[in-house]
Amino acid sequence: GFAVLDADRLARTGDPEVVFGAGKTPAQTVTLLRRLHELHPQRAVLATRCGTDTTTLAARELSGAAIDEVGGTIAVGPLPTPRGRVAVVVAGTSDLPVARECVTTVEVYGAMADLIVDVGVAGLHRLLARRERIEQADAVVVIAGMDGALPSVVGGLVRVPVVAVPTSVGYGAAFGGVAALLTMLNACAPGVSVVNIDNGYGGAVVAARIARQTAPLTAR
Amino acid sequence: GFAVLDADRLARTGDPEVVFGAGKTPAQTVTLLRRLHELHPQRAVLATRCGTDTTTLAARELSGAAIDEVGGTIAVGPLPTPRGRVAVVVAGTSDLPVARECVTTVEVYGAMADLIVDVGVAGLHRLLARRERIEQADAVVVIAGMDGALPSVVGGLVRVPVVAVPTSVGYGAAFGGVAALLTMLNACAPGVSVVNIDNGYGGAVVAARIARQTAPLTAR
Amino acid sequence: GFAVLDADRLARTGDPEVVFGAGKTPAQTVTLLRRLHELHPQRAVLATRCGTDTTTLAARELSGAAIDEVGGTIAVGPLPTPRGRVAVVVAGTSDLPVARECVTTVEVYGAMADLIVDVGVAGLHRLLARRERIEQADAVVVIAGMDGALPSVVGGLVRVPVVAVPTSVGYGAAFGGVAALLTMLNACAPGVSVVNIDNGYGGAVVAARIARQTAPLTAR
Amino acid sequence: GFAVLDADRLARTGDPEVVFGAGKTPAQTVTLLRRLHELHPQRAVLATRCGTDTTTLAARELSGAAIDEVGGTIAVGPLPTPRGRVAVVVAGTSDLPVARECVTTVEVYGAMADLIVDVGVAGLHRLLARRERIEQADAVVVIAGMDGALPSVVGGLVRVPVVAVPTSVGYGAAFGGVAALLTMLNACAPGVSVVNIDNGYGGAVVAARIARQTAPLTAR
Amino acid sequence: GFAVLDADRLARTGDPEVVFGAGKTPAQTVTLLRRLHELHPQRAVLATRCGTDTTTLAARELSGAAIDEVGGTIAVGPLPTPRGRVAVVVAGTSDLPVARECVTTVEVYGAMADLIVDVGVAGLHRLLARRERIEQADAVVVIAGMDGALPSVVGGLVRVPVVAVPTSVGYGAAFGGVAALLTMLNACAPGVSVVNIDNGYGGAVVAARIARQTAPLTAR
Amino acid sequence: GFAVLDADRLARTGDPEVVFGAGKTPAQTVTLLRRLHELHPQRAVLATRCGTDTTTLAARELSGAAIDEVGGTIAVGPLPTPRGRVAVVVAGTSDLPVARECVTTVEVYGAMADLIVDVGVAGLHRLLARRERIEQADAVVVIAGMDGALPSVVGGLVRVPVVAVPTSVGYGAAFGGVAALLTMLNACAPGVSVVNIDNGYGGAVVAARIARQTAPLTAR
Amino acid sequence: GFAVLDADRLARTGDPEVVFGAGKTPAQTVTLLRRLHELHPQRAVLATRCGTDTTTLAARELSGAAIDEVGGTIAVGPLPTPRGRVAVVVAGTSDLPVARECVTTVEVYGAMADLIVDVGVAGLHRLLARRERIEQADAVVVIAGMDGALPSVVGGLVRVPVVAVPTSVGYGAAFGGVAALLTMLNACAPGVSVVNIDNGYGGAVVAARIARQTAPLTAR
Amino acid sequence: GFAVLDADRLARTGDPEVVFGAGKTPAQTVTLLRRLHELHPQRAVLATRCGTDTTTLAARELSGAAIDEVGGTIAVGPLPTPRGRVAVVVAGTSDLPVARECVTTVEVYGAMADLIVDVGVAGLHRLLARRERIEQADAVVVIAGMDGALPSVVGGLVRVPVVAVPTSVGYGAAFGGVAALLTMLNACAPGVSVVNIDNGYGGAVVAARIARQTAPLTAR
Ligand SMILES: Nc1ncnc2c1ncn2[C@@H]1O[C@H](COP(=O)(O)O)[C@@H](O)[C@H]1O
Ligand SMILES: Nc1ncnc2c1ncn2[C@@H]1O[C@H](COP(=O)(O)O)[C@@H](O)[C@H]1O
Ligand SMILES: Nc1ncnc2c1ncn2[C@@H]1O[C@H](COP(=O)(O)O)[C@@H](O)[C@H]1O
Ligand SMILES: Nc1ncnc2c1ncn2[C@@H]1O[C@H](COP(=O)(O)O)[C@@H](O)[C@H]1O
Ligand SMILES: [Mg+2]
Ligand SMILES: [Mg+2]
Ligand SMILES: [Mg+2]
Ligand SMILES: [Mg+2]
Ligand SMILES: [Mg+2]
Ligand SMILES: [Mg+2]
Ligand SMILES: [Mg+2]
Ligand SMILES: [Mg+2]
Repeated sequence: GFAVLDADRLARTGDPEVVFGAGKTPAQTVTLLRRLHELHPQRAVLATRCGTDTTTLAARELSGAAIDEVGGTIAVGPLPTPRGRVAVVVAGTSDLPVARECVTTVEVYGAMADLIVDVGVAGLHRLLARRERIEQADAVVVIAGMDGALPSVVGGLVRVPVVAVPTSVGYGAAFGGVAALLTMLNACAPGVSVVNIDNGYGGAVVAARIARQTAPLTAR
Repeated sequence: GFAVLDADRLARTGDPEVVFGAGKTPAQTVTLLRRLHELHPQRAVLATRCGTDTTTLAARELSGAAIDEVGGTIAVGPLPTPRGRVAVVVAGTSDLPVARECVTTVEVYGAMADLIVDVGVAGLHRLLARRERIEQADAVVVIAGMDGALPSVVGGLVRVPVVAVPTSVGYGAAFGGVAALLTMLNACAPGVSVVNIDNGYGGAVVAARIARQTAPLTAR
Repeated sequence: GFAVLDADRLARTGDPEVVFGAGKTPAQTVTLLRRLHELHPQRAVLATRCGTDTTTLAARELSGAAIDEVGGTIAVGPLPTPRGRVAVVVAGTSDLPVARECVTTVEVYGAMADLIVDVGVAGLHRLLARRERIEQADAVVVIAGMDGALPSVVGGLVRVPVVAVPTSVGYGAAFGGVAALLTMLNACAPGVSVVNIDNGYGGAVVAARIARQTAPLTAR
Repeated sequence: GFAVLDADRLARTGDPEVVFGAGKTPAQTVTLLRRLHELHPQRAVLATRCGTDTTTLAARELSGAAIDEVGGTIAVGPLPTPRGRVAVVVAGTSDLPVARECVTTVEVYGAMADLIVDVGVAGLHRLLARRERIEQADAVVVIAGMDGALPSVVGGLVRVPVVAVPTSVGYGAAFGGVAALLTMLNACAPGVSVVNIDNGYGGAVVAARIARQTAPLTAR
Repeated sequence: GFAVLDADRLARTGDPEVVFGAGKTPAQTVTLLRRLHELHPQRAVLATRCGTDTTTLAARELSGAAIDEVGGTIAVGPLPTPRGRVAVVVAGTSDLPVARECVTTVEVYGAMADLIVDVGVAGLHRLLARRERIEQADAVVVIAGMDGALPSVVGGLVRVPVVAVPTSVGYGAAFGGVAALLTMLNACAPGVSVVNIDNGYGGAVVAARIARQTAPLTAR
Repeated sequence: GFAVLDADRLARTGDPEVVFGAGKTPAQTVTLLRRLHELHPQRAVLATRCGTDTTTLAARELSGAAIDEVGGTIAVGPLPTPRGRVAVVVAGTSDLPVARECVTTVEVYGAMADLIVDVGVAGLHRLLARRERIEQADAVVVIAGMDGALPSVVGGLVRVPVVAVPTSVGYGAAFGGVAALLTMLNACAPGVSVVNIDNGYGGAVVAARIARQTAPLTAR
Repeated sequence: GFAVLDADRLARTGDPEVVFGAGKTPAQTVTLLRRLHELHPQRAVLATRCGTDTTTLAARELSGAAIDEVGGTIAVGPLPTPRGRVAVVVAGTSDLPVARECVTTVEVYGAMADLIVDVGVAGLHRLLARRERIEQADAVVVIAGMDGALPSVVGGLVRVPVVAVPTSVGYGAAFGGVAALLTMLNACAPGVSVVNIDNGYGGAVVAARIARQTAPLTAR
Repeated sequence: GFAVLDADRLARTGDPEVVFGAGKTPAQTVTLLRRLHELHPQRAVLATRCGTDTTTLAARELSGAAIDEVGGTIAVGPLPTPRGRVAVVVAGTSDLPVARECVTTVEVYGAMADLIVDVGVAGLHRLLARRERIEQADAVVVIAGMDGALPSVVGGLVRVPVVAVPTSVGYGAAFGGVAALLTMLNACAPGVSVVNIDNGYGGAVVAARIARQTAPLTAR
């Protein structure tokens, strides 16, 4: 076959393999999702970075799939009971696709997601007004493009780990997310770690694992 | 004065401010540490990136300070009772200064550190032989220079969050840690987030926070 | 004419010139392939980086050509009797186009190719399960994108030269293959050398030459 | 001679030429300062980026010179009567050398400087507590290293132009100030422009010109 | 909703929020513009970086909108009475889209714009012939691509602040505006600050604020 | 108008202004060419970097124009009598568009061009076989992509100045011509200077000026 | 201990572990060499990148060690009987330290080294005069800084694999070896692979393995 | 020996080999200079990039050598009779070392050098005042750091080729001369070609060759 599924990953790491849809044909992605679902019928499996060709094929062939065109995700099978809470804090409207990928992944990885949008640092009161809600989370994902300054500010306000996701939103010297990435790697507030540009998926995995190992099964 | 201490940080984030020793005179660092210690006498306070000028002055002026010349850290005051365990997994001997900064910080931030050194991927059996020990951790920090490949391998083996710390060990196209940084940002195993090059401090803060919020006060 | 073929290259280097299809019109590529075939009728000649326009024209005009649309290659003439064996070890499914270009080139350059796919380091057991097969090779090509960590691991397991091919698979801080390239140049296992991003052809030439000069004509 | 002074610059631009001390011998810098002072005896002239060799020579040879070792500046002659006010807002203690160069330059260029230090975004209340003072300025210079996030926050709070000065404070992926520079160029708050890394001088010239053309001679 | 408008920005900074059209659907941009217009009916509100889909929808749905297809801007509501004058000095014809975005923004932000085009340094007399006109401005925006040398020359001729806008005009080692950006950050004439590549909007905000705070309503 | 022609350039520099077609509408380019031709009817004028839209319009509207679709050039008016000879030495077939722009420009700037193609260093005998022809030139332009090694070799063989033109031919770590550019800037043979990536025009201007000032009017 | 030796590496890969001296104290390096020598008394073991502190200590403490101060290497124990021949072709005199590290490593890894120096492409006849000698090798290492053009030329002349080693020799746009590295990755001659900048060790390992698996024990 | 002199270079290219002093011991450089002088006793030979160790040894051992400590050059033997004139136009005082290397090289390569210093574009009148002198040259070398804008301006004023030499003068985003290099590669005036950062030698070789082939032996 064209692929060797890592069937053992759930046992090793607590979560099944996820299909990276970007370099695959729609048929390949759908086939792999189906195989993963057969391996793990009791637990939602996921494909990310799916174009509309793939989501369209999935809609036809994978009955019951939860599809998000904006976020590019396809989930098949029942979501785990959520443990713990992840705040997904988003700087601007244009960061929404990354935010949606993040929210879906948090849920597939077994935590609760609380999405808070358009609270960039140019109008600080918008963030401060949502501070209490953010403080209820067991982990925070902060998603921002352009200057990527939001995690530095959030990191100075909370006591739980902050996972920063730089986005490619911006132009010119934003360099496709590099400016935001560097800002976040140099965040002057401690407790901030960073994942790849536009990697809402990766930020979610880290945060969901933190949240679920923090919270007892009977959620707070 | 030359500085405005963030006296409120303990209340806001659960940990006091830390002195960044790099751009300061020895006198400035020692003064700030003393002030921080007065603000938080019941809880160890920390300075990082201290040169030997600073550690020498601290040894003379700050009685009872715990000083690590290799790691460049100075801690004053009693360590918190540790909650949870952080495995600090290190690729090579040359990464030790970063590893030492990391271990000290984990302890100042209230978790237990388990240091595992010289387990680079060129001799995989060394890592696999320590797998059980790593699996007992609530969070893993992986420290590596050169190719920075170790977090990708560790990330495929564990179920807790992995915080990757690239180091500037290497030469030529290692570009002072950039090669390792990029490898880690692109780690093909999920659950890996990254901090700045040589930032053992930052990796420790994230991991210690995860560990202590995971573990009940009566440690496992 | 628009080109000056290097008719002497077979005599000098043991292999005829190869057409680089990328910057040429379909007609130019097909014309050059035909001329090369006339110069070297007894030995397969090759064009790489051919788009579908070119492969379509070749299918029509070059009878008996061996065409691979995924790998973008066209070969005309009989393959040499293979000497020696090259393992082509591939991290992920999305690296397949580069892997296919590599396999075809190994064969045109007179060695045997053994393709091993989807054995990335995030699920190490997949690679270890194929270790014996890899150990039968006279040279190994390792193809990987994203973190590019696979050659570091393979390099620690084998005694023959490893040629690493970084691919442009990935996004964000993968920078079109630069992250994988840097990882590979800094591989902490010795015996690894590197070719250009997505250069399955170049990796194959090096490995095939090693394999065929290692193995006596009566192949193993 | 080794240099051609731009004697006409005061007439053209409102301010005399300034000596860039970095690539010059102490003797050259002192000679040029003396010549400039003779050309413009009624108005302070300035040298920047002077090492201690140069400031020592100047202390001996230029009587009445105002010398700042930390900021690396030497001023000779009477300061102009200040018009307008520039707030110089500084993220951390390590940015002080750049801040000092900035303050001296603001004064030599004929405006009043108000220095506000150690108000980085990791402890936001420190900045907000000084908001009123900042609002009294006709222009704001914001100086920050590491993540360079401070101008984005200040820019969202004030109505006068903000000139951002990235500093080389930081390590690793701070890349000697590049991270802060990119952050500032992508500031999501409008009204922010940027000068070169560590260029306290340049930020001051822009801000002082804004301040003095805003304020009537009888300062507010 | 998909966005949280910063309704308070006019009070805080003297100007309402501006819609960044780049990452939004036409419907989103038009909706936000309408909401902003309702919040600030007495004062023009603006959207920038709008494609033709968006300008077409705006033309249909926002009666009285001032639309500039070349500059990608949409303005709704009455322009403020202009205070002060901004010279917009442009190196080449290909920089016109950035120049148009700049002129519109200057006017929406309440200053007068004087556009001077095609005065690049390769034919210096063209610039020198317009020197008097430029000297009448309270602030100068200089827009240039390729070598980005124009602000260095203009900066040596005027006494008001110069805001430099690098453009992505050029090819090869122009690197999409990076060459011009670096030139401008290193301008050897003082008084020059810089905004992001192609950011005519940003340059205009800074210059308009300078101009209007320089000039009394009945200009000085 | 949208442009200010530099009518004086012929007097100042010996050659009229050239239209840079890249950022202009077809109508703008054609209008400017017509205006230039009216200013300099006795001497060919040139537009470069013209797309097929522009060359099509020029074919219709500018009778007698010499149009090269591959090189993207349009010339109007009589060529000057050539003085001196420029060898245009080209590494590969894919560099032809740059080579064609170069040849046309050499002729418009008043020298003779001798085009020598497909003589890359991988088959050195091809270059050595043309050595005598190259030695007859008064200046040499060397055009190469990928490794950009050809100017280093040519520079070691000739006594006249070599102008190196890197091209964007290649992939991966060729970085759109950056690899070739750097190679050429570091050419170990002296007498080599470099112009921008793909700038056949710029290389030609330098070489033609050298050739024509070397050779007396009655050409060799 | 501070290190975990990979005692099994000889069995796995055919060669013992090598000590990377750069990040270690002299005592650490000497201790590790002694331990390695005890593990493998019958076969030379190696340390690379040793400064004079380390070579001095080794001279005193490791009797019989073969020390090369220029190349920074220390070898302890008997060299293996050489199998096969490696030509080490060096562009300039300044590349000698890298060349010496390479030659020593080739011998420790069990092949014969033939060193050919100062044959850069600016004087091609020097290389061509040694062509026969180069053709006797089973593998070629080519070492060059600045433009890094030599492997492209050598690659077009030989039939065995070429391993290219870029060096940091040069200045300015050589960028510490990056220019040479990129040239080599884009070598237009096939059969060339590349190792890290200044990595004479790495180039030697690859070439020696090729040479010794090519040649029967009774060397040619 | 440690080096192979290219004795044939004078015959091939019109000038003898030059010693690159940077990577050599003083003894090596002096030995090579002496050997070159013996090969070419009638014609000055040159070493560049010599530190004070080397110039001191040369002063002692090479009687009659012309040594320039600032420029780092040593010349031995009689200068050729100059043909043609090169204007060496220098932006600032800090560029003098590069300018001195350039002037010496122009003379060793057989042309006359006219040095014009401190005429940067921030005070344009200084350059325009020397325009007539510059117009008498057969070739112009322009040397500038920081913004590197001077060649764009000079290129618009003269009819002879301009060779631009970027220098590493500057700080921050000057990136050791990269900013100036990029500016010059993108010079909007045609007729400008570029050499490596700080390469006064390279600029001189190109310009001297142009000058001497332009001018008849009885100089103008
Ligand atoms: N090694 C370190 N790396 C990065 N940030 C640090 C480090 N040590 C301390 N910090 C942060 O630096 C800030 C203090 O900076 P300062 O006010 O200059 O002492 C605090 O917010 C710390 O969290
Ligand atoms: N062309 C532009 N370039 C940079 N920033 C802009 C531009 N247009 C609007 N903005 C800013 O973008 C922010 C709005 O972003 P959003 O919430 O995504 O609409 C506002 O703070 C504006 O000041
Ligand atoms: N292909 C080209 N590459 C670089 N510069 C060019 C090119 N063609 C024309 N130019 C220059 O571009 C300038 C004209 O730009 P513009 O005013 O935008 O037409 C002239 O000074 C030409 O010398
Ligand atoms: N000069 C060198 N360049 C790159 N890698 C080396 C070099 N010398 C030794 N090594 C590798 O470094 C590893 C040992 O590193 P360490 O564990 O830090 O002692 C071994 O796997 C060697 O193969
Ligand atoms: Mg918004
Ligand atoms: Mg080790
Ligand atoms: Mg897979
Ligand atoms: Mg502080
Ligand atoms: Mg123009
Ligand atoms: Mg060819
Ligand atoms: Mg030599
Ligand atoms: Mg000067």
